[in-house]
Amino acid sequence: MSDLVLYSMPSSGNSYKVRLLLALLGRDYTHVPVETQSAEIAAAKAKGQLPQGKAPALHLGDGEILTESNAILWYLAQGSGWIPQDPLAQARMLGWMFFEQNRHEPVVAVRASLRCYPHLAQEATEAHMAELLDAGHAILQIMEEGLGEAPYFGGARPDLADIALYAYTHTAGERGGFDMERYPGLRAWIERIAALPGYVELMPDG
Amino acid sequence: MSDLVLYSMPSSGNSYKVRLLLALLGRDYTHVPVETQSAEIAAAKAKGQLPQGKAPALHLGDGEILTESNAILWYLAQGSGWIPQDPLAQARMLGWMFFEQNRHEPVVAVRASLRCYPHLAQEATEAHMAELLDAGHAILQIMEEGLGEAPYFGGARPDLADIALYAYTHTAGERGGFDMERYPGLRAWIERIAALPGYVELMPDG
Repeated sequence: MSDLVLYSMPSSGNSYKVRLLLALLGRDYTHVPVETQSAEIAAAKAKGQLPQGKAPALHLGDGEILTESNAILWYLAQGSGWIPQDPLAQARMLGWMFFEQNRHEPVVAVRASLRCYPHLAQEATEAHMAELLDAGHAILQIMEEGLGEAPYFGGARPDLADIALYAYTHTAGERGGFDMERYPGLRAWIERIAALPGYVELMPDG
Repeated sequence: MSDLVLYSMPSSGNSYKVRLLLALLGRDYTHVPVETQSAEIAAAKAKGQLPQGKAPALHLGDGEILTESNAILWYLAQGSGWIPQDPLAQARMLGWMFFEQNRHEPVVAVRASLRCYPHLAQEATEAHMAELLDAGHAILQIMEEGLGEAPYFGGARPDLADIALYAYTHTAGERGGFDMERYPGLRAWIERIAALPGYVELMPDG
């Protein structure tokens, strides 16, 4: 597996998920940073290294390229403790991961992008940002209640749902402008994830 | 498994995915229809039968309730030929399913909803509908190219990616107003799915 090459966007939560899991697994890989709006991402797109023009993309070394962050997590975690064996537990984990892509990312991550990426600033109208703020607080409340008294979304131990949800949630306050004081359970969970052995930050070089 | 009770919205593609897979599997279940804006869905929400107020919700008969359409598919298809064994094939299947929830449903299904549900008509501004039309055609083009010469998204045989993608794609022309003439591969694929043994339509009673 040392032939793994990951094309990832340093500032992106979807890309970070994959780097975080690789670090937690202690897996070696070659990292090719392709930041948004950079010459590097333009070159990678032109060379067909990013199918559909999207990062992250995991090159498996035999010509195969995997896309979709949560599907890459599934592939990399095979045979590890990050995927539960029980089918019902697997379905609950995937349920949170689909929730993350369908309801969380389009609101929580999008609001952060509109605040942080200058090339998107024109889309950040006052009405749209207010709408995203309310929608994001509702999504974070669903997470707060879903976590309940458990230490992790995976239950007693973390699984891929925790990785997927952590990526854009741990920066929802600073980047997204959401009021994280409302979610004590999520704040404690964020600290728990950050304390896992092998943990790496979103942009260690940033 | 005869204790399965499915709360599903007859007009919804997400709900239809689950009914379609259950039919293709020949699995018995009790169906509780909860159409949008109906007294039935209000009652089910009030009784806690729809976690987060969302359909579909699969009640497993032991107090467990599964949500998120694609996660329900995963649970129901365990041990069947609808999930490939190979981890890379599984990751590709899940990749299409995350694509469906993150990029396809928020555009293709949303445009259909804005056209078909009277209570959403006020959101269907000309500019928004034109934007969704262009975005949806781009998404359908990604599918057309992703399918390529294969009969199914699963390859030689269909897998859960086909079920997930079919739900809102087969009505994208009639309900969504998308120009399906552009996608001959998808049109042939839609016919192939509709010919599968056990196939049921979106709203057999509608």
